[in-house]
Amino acid sequence: MESTENRIGQLVEAMLSDYEGGKDIDRVLSFDQPDKAVVVDMLDKLQHLVFPGYFRNRGMKVYTVRNDTTMLIEDVLYYLQKQLLIVLGYRNDMKEASDEQLRSCAEETAFAFMEKLPKIREFIETDVQAFFDGDPAAFYKDEIIFCYPGLYAIFVNRIAHELYLLNVPMIPRIMTEHAHSLTGIDINPGATIGKYFFIDHGTGIVVGETTVIGNNVKIYQGVTLGAASTRGGRSLNNKKRHPTIEDDVTIYSGASILGGDTVIGKGCVIGGNCFITKSIPAGAKVSIRSQELLYKYNEKKEICSQLDEESSWFYVI
Amino acid sequence: MESTENRIGQLVEAMLSDYEGGKDIDRVLSFDQPDKAVVVDMLDKLQHLVFPGYFRNRGMKVYTVRNDTTMLIEDVLYYLQKQLLIVLGYRNDMKEASDEQLRSCAEETAFAFMEKLPKIREFIETDVQAFFDGDPAAFYKDEIIFCYPGLYAIFVNRIAHELYLLNVPMIPRIMTEHAHSLTGIDINPGATIGKYFFIDHGTGIVVGETTVIGNNVKIYQGVTLGAASTRGGRSLNNKKRHPTIEDDVTIYSGASILGGDTVIGKGCVIGGNCFITKSIPAGAKVSIRSQELLYKYNEKKEICSQLDEESSWFYVI
Amino acid sequence: MESTENRIGQLVEAMLSDYEGGKDIDRVLSFDQPDKAVVVDMLDKLQHLVFPGYFRNRGMKVYTVRNDTTMLIEDVLYYLQKQLLIVLGYRNDMKEASDEQLRSCAEETAFAFMEKLPKIREFIETDVQAFFDGDPAAFYKDEIIFCYPGLYAIFVNRIAHELYLLNVPMIPRIMTEHAHSLTGIDINPGATIGKYFFIDHGTGIVVGETTVIGNNVKIYQGVTLGAASTRGGRSLNNKKRHPTIEDDVTIYSGASILGGDTVIGKGCVIGGNCFITKSIPAGAKVSIRSQELLYKYNEKKEICSQLDEESSWFYVI
Repeated sequence: MESTENRIGQLVEAMLSDYEGGKDIDRVLSFDQPDKAVVVDMLDKLQHLVFPGYFRNRGMKVYTVRNDTTMLIEDVLYYLQKQLLIVLGYRNDMKEASDEQLRSCAEETAFAFMEKLPKIREFIETDVQAFFDGDPAAFYKDEIIFCYPGLYAIFVNRIAHELYLLNVPMIPRIMTEHAHSLTGIDINPGATIGKYFFIDHGTGIVVGETTVIGNNVKIYQGVTLGAASTRGGRSLNNKKRHPTIEDDVTIYSGASILGGDTVIGKGCVIGGNCFITKSIPAGAKVSIRSQELLYKYNEKKEICSQLDEESSWFYVI
Repeated sequence: MESTENRIGQLVEAMLSDYEGGKDIDRVLSFDQPDKAVVVDMLDKLQHLVFPGYFRNRGMKVYTVRNDTTMLIEDVLYYLQKQLLIVLGYRNDMKEASDEQLRSCAEETAFAFMEKLPKIREFIETDVQAFFDGDPAAFYKDEIIFCYPGLYAIFVNRIAHELYLLNVPMIPRIMTEHAHSLTGIDINPGATIGKYFFIDHGTGIVVGETTVIGNNVKIYQGVTLGAASTRGGRSLNNKKRHPTIEDDVTIYSGASILGGDTVIGKGCVIGGNCFITKSIPAGAKVSIRSQELLYKYNEKKEICSQLDEESSWFYVI
Repeated sequence: MESTENRIGQLVEAMLSDYEGGKDIDRVLSFDQPDKAVVVDMLDKLQHLVFPGYFRNRGMKVYTVRNDTTMLIEDVLYYLQKQLLIVLGYRNDMKEASDEQLRSCAEETAFAFMEKLPKIREFIETDVQAFFDGDPAAFYKDEIIFCYPGLYAIFVNRIAHELYLLNVPMIPRIMTEHAHSLTGIDINPGATIGKYFFIDHGTGIVVGETTVIGNNVKIYQGVTLGAASTRGGRSLNNKKRHPTIEDDVTIYSGASILGGDTVIGKGCVIGGNCFITKSIPAGAKVSIRSQELLYKYNEKKEICSQLDEESSWFYVI
């Protein structure tokens, strides 16, 4: 029998020769990928900046707000520019850029993003209010800020969406997939979301790239705002594939609203489990017709519609 | 063009002046919030105490069970009291309390909680048995204890529920949202759950605050035990909004059971995807009537109900 | 009132006496359980080996691919053998094995697994292509490799499935439950999956132990490939309980396909929310018949089927 050392040698040779096959999953000796850990660390620091005092550097006690704020801003700027220098290379219009052009674009992009922070904070303040107003189980706003997954998901979308609008490759999606992993809520950075947005529970929510959502919209767990067909695959890139949700709409759990031309009008209420592929006029209330259930009880069977039509309105989750 | 230093200075001023707007998301210079990392660390230590030997301090090798147990108990007591001193301030009946009253309440609450650990362990022992009996894919009980998300979710509920009963603000929800993030299972700390509880797969499960669940109940992924309407918003706080599930009930995946007056009687079986908003008598078996499917095949189309009624019983997931 | 020290003493005694009750959740003084943190660390190192250059040791800058690869291979081999020595003890055929037999089995198993890495890489290269072709929102393959949860889930399944085939207890499930926790995608290590597998969004997907999936299959969020009944509980262990999905099948979001005898034929398209418990012939397209919705609008109510039959094909998410 061969020695362990020889067998390891064979594994290494097999691996190295496999690396020479030119696969897409190989980037041996390449150092130009973004660093996920750095991106997540930026998100944490942005959370400190957006919710000052709530999330705090645990390694240092900082009593001087100015110092703390300056340090966080400088830190995010520094790492964002470093990551931008890497990811801007993915952009077609930057393939030929000089180092100086790249550096300048990274700097302008980083500052342009940071200047959005007060606007992001203005929106998130309204989100916290919407969560508090909408959830009977919330005792304190602090509870929402500390631990509601929906608030974290909308915070990350608001950050990532600004970077998306600034034409930043890769980083926005790394951010939203981090939020997806923590919350089960998958909001593409491209999605445009108005003020007072409320997500309850949240697990299983999917909001597609070209979705547009107005002010004061509520969505519950398992809601999909999706594409009506993806058979076109990559050819659909950059087309509006996802719905528009106007102001004051509520969408209860498990509902799917699909298609780039689908508009849910102002003030609509969409009941749980509805499957919608056409526009709904403003003010309408839509629910699934009462589901027929089959009961089996004491040797008898019965088919019945559990709910009369009146009461089936707004059965929600 | 301005110097980078000046531009950073402007960002800092903009941020600081934004912090002066009195937003709810600002707690600048406040140090009275609970610490999520400490709460999660307590959960880890409680896991060591509840499953002795399974989860273990990796930094130290402890062979003397008494020492290990004492250390864990003292540690949890110390940090729990520190966090309680912070969060008790959220309680209306504590707003005027003296430091001495707060300290005494924190101590009594911490001890009262720790005294529940044997009872919690008694319940969790039955849960492990229920998981093992219920899942044909489980090879060993150790597998369930080490890596089943459903068991982690019920462990955290049992811990958080005792703190909830002791009227502890914030901490119970921080704990259950930590479990929600890791497992996709969202069980509110208020939910009361009997022995031999089994959760399979689990992603997407929502169990609301005022849900009451008996002994020997099984639920599958995507099940919602929810409120029938949340239009009342905050006014519904403290009302029973979620269903009661009696002993020996099985609820298959994707089913929704809604409303504070809804009672699912002893021994019921609720089929996959049922949407239930009224009480079901004990012993009944309920399933959706066979879904009509549209087939398109060899240029022909056909609408057919896939299942005859008999076979549609218990199609489960 | 008693001293704090006495009260702690009582808690400790209560706990220690509770540990003597012989519960299954007690493994006091036992040191023969696998270490989840080590298993997760192996997964990280295997990710470095499978995607060289993409994921990288952050503590060291390694420019010599041979050194880096050798180090990773040796490290995984070392820890895998150590963990195998522990978990092989769970196998019935190893209960009586000598230390020498255990050691030899651990070594052979570890090498046999490592020799599968080039095959695993071959499959994952096709998965990345399938993700890129299938998702109009993907800008770059690097984005898929860095942050798509579906790719991580299939990567972990391919690793864990090889260990499952080598009859390794515990470790495969610890790996897939780690992926489940990060992605909301629950693929049992037993599931057999062909090339060019594409998962979009992914949250809520369940793929059971005895599922067999062909080449070029796409599945969306919330899809269950499950068992038709679990009433048999543990007696069903080792039976084929989950469906077979042939080549070129697409299964849209929320669909459930159940049962060990259910075969979805080559090229089928299964629409969103379908609930399938019988086989579907090759080439068929199946969708739910248009859902009846109840509209309430301007004081009028209307029941209507939103979609004409033609357009209901392929409404997808």
